[in-house]
Amino acid sequence: MPGPVQSIERAAAILRLLAQGSGRLGLTEIANSLGLARGTAHGILRTLQLVGFVEQDEATGKYQLGAALLHLGTSYLDVNELRSRAINWADALAARSGEAVRIGTHLQGKVLVVHHVFRPDDSLQTLDVGMLLPMHATAIGKVLLAYDANAAAALHDAVQDGELEQFTRRTVRTHREMSRALTTVREHGWASDFDEAGMGEAGVAAPIRGYGGLVVGAMGISGATERICDPGGRPRPDLVAYVRDAARAVSRDLGASRW
Amino acid sequence: MPGPVQSIERAAAILRLLAQGSGRLGLTEIANSLGLARGTAHGILRTLQLVGFVEQDEATGKYQLGAALLHLGTSYLDVNELRSRAINWADALAARSGEAVRIGTHLQGKVLVVHHVFRPDDSLQTLDVGMLLPMHATAIGKVLLAYDANAAAALHDAVQDGELEQFTRRTVRTHREMSRALTTVREHGWASDFDEAGMGEAGVAAPIRGYGGLVVGAMGISGATERICDPGGRPRPDLVAYVRDAARAVSRDLGASRW
Repeated sequence: MPGPVQSIERAAAILRLLAQGSGRLGLTEIANSLGLARGTAHGILRTLQLVGFVEQDEATGKYQLGAALLHLGTSYLDVNELRSRAINWADALAARSGEAVRIGTHLQGKVLVVHHVFRPDDSLQTLDVGMLLPMHATAIGKVLLAYDANAAAALHDAVQDGELEQFTRRTVRTHREMSRALTTVREHGWASDFDEAGMGEAGVAAPIRGYGGLVVGAMGISGATERICDPGGRPRPDLVAYVRDAARAVSRDLGASRW
Repeated sequence: MPGPVQSIERAAAILRLLAQGSGRLGLTEIANSLGLARGTAHGILRTLQLVGFVEQDEATGKYQLGAALLHLGTSYLDVNELRSRAINWADALAARSGEAVRIGTHLQGKVLVVHHVFRPDDSLQTLDVGMLLPMHATAIGKVLLAYDANAAAALHDAVQDGELEQFTRRTVRTHREMSRALTTVREHGWASDFDEAGMGEAGVAAPIRGYGGLVVGAMGISGATERICDPGGRPRPDLVAYVRDAARAVSRDLGASRW
């Protein structure tokens, strides 16, 4: 079997690079970041521009992501079975819990948000669909780490020196601490975060299983700690039950008969 | 200067193919659609799978778009200057007009919606961001056709036999009719549609210009014909003024000093 096509791998690396930081980079910055010769990088960029995946700013000559990617990303959502099966259950969960609902799947060591229902009140909220969340600091991420071997391996690879990124003083710090936390997640069948991604924020999530019982995503609520948790710092049992019921209902719709 | 990288062009063609129709295709269907040898198509698909642009369904073996594209699409929106400069003006236009506001740019002979503000009422609406609209049947599309030579050329290429797709009996039918309509658009500085994309739907749009005066997008309102148009079938002058003012304000923010 032949190996992967190098120019496509390089093109993907350029697109990932442009999706980071300010999003606008010159040819030399791109070539240097990826260890490519300028001529090689230029050939790939020109092709990416031709197919609409990259745009070049006329004034500065810098490259940025192109419009064709927006349409492909939206088309991904349209065919995503996890999302289409989960939409009604996510609405119901938001209504029952009174909190925002997010559905996430694993992408490159992070949680990719594929669906987001706003908290049912009039507060100003921004859509998180397409955003990447940290796995080790969110309930959804912990569920993916606990049940999806690829997600766990990707986090391990992404953190070379063993120290996980700290968002608050309560963020899980080491892989060893995380291992213990994940054992608890598997015992309980759900995960929570409590002032770990940001002070005052908490969440509860449960696994979504597909055909054959494989975990294909996670579904959870998130909101102000004082609403999600009781005074002892534990997630309110009624909210946990709502989240688990909703995730089980989606799993059943996806064909995971035993769960 | 070397030519475009063939494997990247082919990879992009596969992604575009998967963004159409049902969104799930087998290897043979993909190879046949693009006139590729099965082995060639397989090598490209495996690489696209490796970088997360494509996913393979375990049960059926069919390919579909991958999660990494959703994140790239969202990242495109984050760096899109047209969108970021236009957000506040789009909100203001929706509030003044009482109608939904969309901002579009040209992509492959269609209008790509890069921003969408819902009509400010409690009606159920779905987000159009990332969707492609027909150019010849929408006010936004006509503005792009009137001012963006690439958009006009792309529509011409996309319609081989000269007949434009008919959505209603009022949809512009021929390139000749369209040419006349576009002359009017350029004379007036704005465009409208009236029962052309769908019966009972109307819209008004104006050009957004970037640095140097080049048209980089269009901004418009759309809604029920009886709200947008007066009994004579003409767009209400107050709405036209609101749209033009908003598009001019965005253009000024983008550095188009003369307009």
